Amino acid sequence: MYNQTELKDLVEKAITNLSYNTEAEKLIDPVKYILSIGGKRLRPVLALMACNLFNDNIGEAVMPAVGIEVFHNFTLVHDDIMDQAPVRRNFPTVHSKWNVNQAVLSGDVMAFIANECFLQTPAKCLSKVFRIYNRVAVEVCIGQQLDIDFEKASFVTREEYLRMIELKTSVLLAASAKIGAVIGGSSDRDADLLYDFGRNLGLAFQVQDDMLDTYGESKVFGKVQGGDIISNKKTYLLVKALEMANREQLKVLHELFSTTDTDPQEKVNKVMDIYDQLNIRSVTEQLANDYIKTSLSLLEKTDVPKKRKNELQLMAGSLIGRKK
Amino acid sequence: MYNQTELKDLVEKAITNLSYNTEAEKLIDPVKYILSIGGKRLRPVLALMACNLFNDNIGEAVMPAVGIEVFHNFTLVHDDIMDQAPVRRNFPTVHSKWNVNQAVLSGDVMAFIANECFLQTPAKCLSKVFRIYNRVAVEVCIGQQLDIDFEKASFVTREEYLRMIELKTSVLLAASAKIGAVIGGSSDRDADLLYDFGRNLGLAFQVQDDMLDTYGESKVFGKVQGGDIISNKKTYLLVKALEMANREQLKVLHELFSTTDTDPQEKVNKVMDIYDQLNIRSVTEQLANDYIKTSLSLLEKTDVPKKRKNELQLMAGSLIGRKK
Repeated sequence: MYNQTELKDLVEKAITNLSYNTEAEKLIDPVKYILSIGGKRLRPVLALMACNLFNDNIGEAVMPAVGIEVFHNFTLVHDDIMDQAPVRRNFPTVHSKWNVNQAVLSGDVMAFIANECFLQTPAKCLSKVFRIYNRVAVEVCIGQQLDIDFEKASFVTREEYLRMIELKTSVLLAASAKIGAVIGGSSDRDADLLYDFGRNLGLAFQVQDDMLDTYGESKVFGKVQGGDIISNKKTYLLVKALEMANREQLKVLHELFSTTDTDPQEKVNKVMDIYDQLNIRSVTEQLANDYIKTSLSLLEKTDVPKKRKNELQLMAGSLIGRKK
Repeated sequence: MYNQTELKDLVEKAITNLSYNTEAEKLIDPVKYILSIGGKRLRPVLALMACNLFNDNIGEAVMPAVGIEVFHNFTLVHDDIMDQAPVRRNFPTVHSKWNVNQAVLSGDVMAFIANECFLQTPAKCLSKVFRIYNRVAVEVCIGQQLDIDFEKASFVTREEYLRMIELKTSVLLAASAKIGAVIGGSSDRDADLLYDFGRNLGLAFQVQDDMLDTYGESKVFGKVQGGDIISNKKTYLLVKALEMANREQLKVLHELFSTTDTDPQEKVNKVMDIYDQLNIRSVTEQLANDYIKTSLSLLEKTDVPKKRKNELQLMAGSLIGRKK
């Protein structure tokens, strides 16, 4: 069994060794850049762990796992254009380091580099794995669309919000786990359990991301603190606050989130005041922890010797209370 | 054997019948829009004709052929962002009808809708067909990168230019023909001949496109006349003119193409004056016709009864002297 550090190293090495058609180096430079500035490699590591759950040999899952990471970074490059985000993982985003056109085009080629990785899936499960991947790739686009739509919407329900993050974030972690399981030779039932395991983990992860955007240390987290508040982004914190607020708090929140005139720091302070009054931080942490517990109970149900589940349990558990 | 009109109808019907995940309609509306405003459907029709060359049953090639068309339209949506083009096929481009963010995202989902189509390739040749497609998808991105780079370059050789259009345009027509052939059950040799047939057809097509941008009637051609000249785009006309120009003409061309200050109509007129002096229009038409002849001689070499080649010959021949 591989541990998380070994798998992350394996993924890093495979990403470094990716071969590119370099006839136009300007196209590939941003690809190498975004793939080199790290991140947690959560998705490919999850895929390899899920594979390792069923199989000691995880070699066949490495390229599809890398494909998931390339796809994930493709979405980051394009999402950062749409969000006009200047910083990602403490580094300039691709469109700010180069320009929007370059970010569109270098992002595009990543979608096909991801395909290339998936085309290296063993023939026996190529079609099945590619279908799982491609379905969630479409869903991730839908999630980003809902995210954009919600920015303009005056009100978003808790259910609508959770469905949006399910599509935008969770289904890709779900697919990562399922793809690893399928390549590892799992039963259909176990593959589906792994999908739901990843889905719940993803929900926890995104709810935490919302929390860290407001309450995380920006240096540790790698984004501007309160960026979501400044850009009027719907987050779990906001959606929950709007659900819990009294008339007075509701009025202030509506005013603050309907203009872009307020001084950014003042806006962040005022919103955080209300969040604090409503205890939003701990409510949100609680929800994330509930999702993690659900994911662990799903893992429990898989038909695999207990000992093999250790690494996935550790990984899920390590998300509890994460700071970045 | 199917004729071109029957195949175009078949493609239109399959495009109309595409099923989408419509959880976010705003994401899919631009996809339906760009796919509905027509175009010649040259690539999918070419794929189906190539399939029909080897097989009376072309049903299995329909979805991959549609996949090629969806991919092609994906590149149009994103290229139009990069080129800031207001009009495509006499209709507003996606980013001008909606906005740049929407065009990025709805473009993105088209890459995965194209994948979905390719995943419907018969299992026996899924992997082979997907590899042919994905390789050229990367090449098309490289071609677009070179196109962008060339806009800023002060000088581009004829060879560099022809390689750029080979990547940006020709390889997709080449892949269309090869994919059709492979699904139709051709030999490897014939599939490669069909690839080169499509490649030459694509080169002819792009050289003609350059010509029509300057000499075509904008209402018939569906783009602003002289748009390439106004935006300082390198075209075969320009590259060839720079190769043939005397010192005086060279000086004027360099001046005109190094500023954006000149009145657009005046710039177009002055450049066209020089093109006329150098007989650029007929030199360009001649090159396009040479490519078409080469493509026809490659088709000749395929190991297929002469009569079956009729439709592909007609299609290639119909490109000679096209007005739109």
